[in-house]
Amino acid sequence: MKYSDSGVDIDRSNEAKRRIKSLVRSTFTEAVVGDIGTFGGMYRPDFLSLQKPILVSSADGVGTKLKVAFLSGIHDTVGIDLVSHCTNDILVQGAFPLFFLDYIASGRVEPAVIEQLVKGLAEGCRQSQCVLIGGETAEMPDFYQKGEYDLAGFIVGMVDESKLLGSRKVEQGDILVGLRSSGLHTNGYSLARKIFFDQEKVRVDSYVESLGRTAGEELLAPHRNYLPLVKELVQSDDLHAMAHITGGGITENLDRVLPANLDGAVQRGSWEVLPVFRYLRERGQVEDEEMYRTFNMGIGLILVVARDRLSRVEDYLRTRNEQYYLIGEVVPGTGKVRYV
Amino acid sequence: MKYSDSGVDIDRSNEAKRRIKSLVRSTFTEAVVGDIGTFGGMYRPDFLSLQKPILVSSADGVGTKLKVAFLSGIHDTVGIDLVSHCTNDILVQGAFPLFFLDYIASGRVEPAVIEQLVKGLAEGCRQSQCVLIGGETAEMPDFYQKGEYDLAGFIVGMVDESKLLGSRKVEQGDILVGLRSSGLHTNGYSLARKIFFDQEKVRVDSYVESLGRTAGEELLAPHRNYLPLVKELVQSDDLHAMAHITGGGITENLDRVLPANLDGAVQRGSWEVLPVFRYLRERGQVEDEEMYRTFNMGIGLILVVARDRLSRVEDYLRTRNEQYYLIGEVVPGTGKVRYV
Repeated sequence: MKYSDSGVDIDRSNEAKRRIKSLVRSTFTEAVVGDIGTFGGMYRPDFLSLQKPILVSSADGVGTKLKVAFLSGIHDTVGIDLVSHCTNDILVQGAFPLFFLDYIASGRVEPAVIEQLVKGLAEGCRQSQCVLIGGETAEMPDFYQKGEYDLAGFIVGMVDESKLLGSRKVEQGDILVGLRSSGLHTNGYSLARKIFFDQEKVRVDSYVESLGRTAGEELLAPHRNYLPLVKELVQSDDLHAMAHITGGGITENLDRVLPANLDGAVQRGSWEVLPVFRYLRERGQVEDEEMYRTFNMGIGLILVVARDRLSRVEDYLRTRNEQYYLIGEVVPGTGKVRYV
Repeated sequence: MKYSDSGVDIDRSNEAKRRIKSLVRSTFTEAVVGDIGTFGGMYRPDFLSLQKPILVSSADGVGTKLKVAFLSGIHDTVGIDLVSHCTNDILVQGAFPLFFLDYIASGRVEPAVIEQLVKGLAEGCRQSQCVLIGGETAEMPDFYQKGEYDLAGFIVGMVDESKLLGSRKVEQGDILVGLRSSGLHTNGYSLARKIFFDQEKVRVDSYVESLGRTAGEELLAPHRNYLPLVKELVQSDDLHAMAHITGGGITENLDRVLPANLDGAVQRGSWEVLPVFRYLRERGQVEDEEMYRTFNMGIGLILVVARDRLSRVEDYLRTRNEQYYLIGEVVPGTGKVRYV
């Protein structure tokens, strides 16, 4: 018997590795020590520019948005989703990414698919100005369905301790500034797929009138990476905190940056709920409370801004032609999100 | 419709989070900034003790060893496997772990299973003296079979640039010292399962005479974590390199620390091949070459030692009652492993 008889083919994995090498290397900077192929990826951080460096890290998956990639045969955008998700998760604490690692698992390694996945990861890393320093491609027969895979990632960034954003800086009266999402980002896909594909019998390539595009285009729109937009804002002292609105919606993400004695009072109707969420609410008969703790509802990032810095932040966003919404404020409470 | 109608239950996920909190916190040290629940995990590294700190990172999965966990219902050891695998991957470059993040994906989040998985991860982190600083638990309906999950992890460690181990230090005449594995570790499981369960019709709880234990005990034996054993050796200057023998066996791992003009001449028969590998070779009729590029064959870590430091290294290992084998040496060649 040979190893390949069990469904694991080292030669096929080596072919995948060969294909992704140049994509991975394209993200390298002089901070990378050595080359691809060592047991661990090596990165030389610039600690000297910081007084008290803190490493900030996060792990995430793409979730069942991957099913939309399988249906449409488009595999070069989910990598962007993943890097965006991870980047935003550390960015909200004030950290900028240093490097990223991926985990790709499938029943059978298809070198052409792996190449597309890594193409997306490399593009995501370019947006985040970080290095794709390592990863694992696992071939696991009997785990995944034919043509399917799972994709997870890990990011490490750095911030000076004095620049850390979060609940400790948040004060009563702070203003909540919402930045638009590009759609579902990477959350709520199990429910969205059920409504689109099971209930409405829409196909990925069906044009959906109210969305102005196909279901596949809508549902594969990459998770927005907020780093390029807010980088200089984070480097200023104009923010107290930020919340990345992912699984759990505004309800279960904004509360992560609220101190125990303050609430986030969010005014529904103060921003434009994207068409896809209206579609999901109407077709799926989903109640409002459920919508707001499942989907981002059109707000992908919330900036928590001191009242006296608001005009500076608004100027910053206007200069960059960024549509933003004043969606609420921080009020006395118990560390919860409250819709008003 | 509700989100839970699609198979994703935020309340169940929150229950899982509640259960793992104390396990995760048990790994925390004063290097951790903040608590569980922030978007990214925060770690304050001690850079001042190093001259030129390098961050070394690695991503890995447990692979289809997980199927043995599913069959036996034992879920608190695969976390140890994962941390051991990741730890060894950065240890061989001279780095000691700082922190670890996990990714757990399943079709339905079972809080009791998640708790067992994290129990193993926390135990692994204790062995590696690192912090379980974050992770993602993904509920993905229609992805994984009932009762199954995937588990991946990611580690970050640190080393002073002058202490980096690897091919740059390896010289002709260096001695290869093999340290025993505890069994398959986390590699070759698709083939092993095929031979044990499909061909031999062994059950996980069947006692296997030649192994002296049940198939489940043999196949779930945790991947050995070499950090506690070799920590002080790594801190000395007695090693040129180390190779962690994982997927690809000695054949495709030792070569990762060989310079382009040297070979690793490995003498088969110079160490005790563990009974499980004899069983697999005989029952599976697997050819030798295939065995050596699929399994670790009883050697989980290879130390590459300068000839004039060998007696010191041998003393070190003997003092710790560690069985070791002189399995070969570094000779002129082309960067390949050669069996002699």
